[in-house]
Amino acid sequence: MTKKGYFISSEGPEGAGKTTVMNLLGDKLKAEGYEVVMTREPGGISISEKIRDIILDTEHTMMDSRTEALLYAAARRQHLVEKVQPAIDAGKIVICDRFIDSSLAYQGHARGIGIEEILVINQFAIGEMMPDKTILFDIEPRIGLARIDAHSGREKNRLDVESLAFHEKVREGYLSLVERYPKRIQVIDANRSIEEVLEEVYKVVKQELEIIR
Amino acid sequence: MTKKGYFISSEGPEGAGKTTVMNLLGDKLKAEGYEVVMTREPGGISISEKIRDIILDTEHTMMDSRTEALLYAAARRQHLVEKVQPAIDAGKIVICDRFIDSSLAYQGHARGIGIEEILVINQFAIGEMMPDKTILFDIEPRIGLARIDAHSGREKNRLDVESLAFHEKVREGYLSLVERYPKRIQVIDANRSIEEVLEEVYKVVKQELEIIR
Repeated sequence: MTKKGYFISSEGPEGAGKTTVMNLLGDKLKAEGYEVVMTREPGGISISEKIRDIILDTEHTMMDSRTEALLYAAARRQHLVEKVQPAIDAGKIVICDRFIDSSLAYQGHARGIGIEEILVINQFAIGEMMPDKTILFDIEPRIGLARIDAHSGREKNRLDVESLAFHEKVREGYLSLVERYPKRIQVIDANRSIEEVLEEVYKVVKQELEIIR
Repeated sequence: MTKKGYFISSEGPEGAGKTTVMNLLGDKLKAEGYEVVMTREPGGISISEKIRDIILDTEHTMMDSRTEALLYAAARRQHLVEKVQPAIDAGKIVICDRFIDSSLAYQGHARGIGIEEILVINQFAIGEMMPDKTILFDIEPRIGLARIDAHSGREKNRLDVESLAFHEKVREGYLSLVERYPKRIQVIDANRSIEEVLEEVYKVVKQELEIIR
């Protein structure tokens, strides 16, 4: 399959502002005349939605972490085949909120299954369809958590402490992926304001688009 | 995890008589005092049943073959963790109708995804839990299909011809697995009567059980 479009994924923890910034980026690119598809798994794909329902069903307390990882990979495959790939084949820019690196950082590193193991099933799922560019919103775990707290308006508690350790693990996972994929993954300092982050992301993406077009 | 019990899988095409023979074998072993668990995927495991429902939903005409392979691996994992592994840990003999080799022969070889590729996601799913012994019911595709026809009482048609080519591919896949796993997979000539096949399978399994007990 020939790739005609351009495939961007955004990554990072909750609270890093990635959804807000990438939506603004999408609007900016559309205003310039680019055809942009904004998506995130399961992306309205019926099969992927049903798989997601199984993962999120609170009755499934027995679900093994490897079963879960295989289900995420299956949902990813179907979303890719039905939505991402056709858009790219049609020459569009696809911006996907989270993709393979989320599984690698969260399930592979932070949950402890192992990045290599999660990589293997995801390579089976996505084949050659790695993102052309991945924007990693890197943020100090304390700042990210504070932002989430500010939105939810709740007080710090014991869970937040555990949560901090987990967020630190996720960050560690992401940063190890930057070493593994230095050309694909662009780290963005997300400790700054939305405007500053957007400006930098825009510059990175525009430069890439100008190279290929 | 220490393995205390014994894990047997049965493999082969439809029409080879494997379900009938293995049920008789299970009865024989139970009569001798062995604790035997007969199972097949999804094996009544709620999560695996729901995954199977997605695979079999006739509305899912868009389902990609790799999505399907990942879903089968996920259902296998959960059935293994919830049912097979606990029984083996409790010292029982588990006899499972079809396991990893069905995916390798059907999806990997006959459907053309590739045995290596299917192996990788299944190794993620099952870890060290390969069957101790696999009984492969090998049958001439023409004979197997004739048996299915005899049961269904229908005439041969154009589909049976395609079906024959497919069954030959499946057999080719299974026989390549025997070369890969010569110690684990025991080929049984299933062109004979149920009684003859049962006698041979019983001998093979008893010999194995006597070695480990």
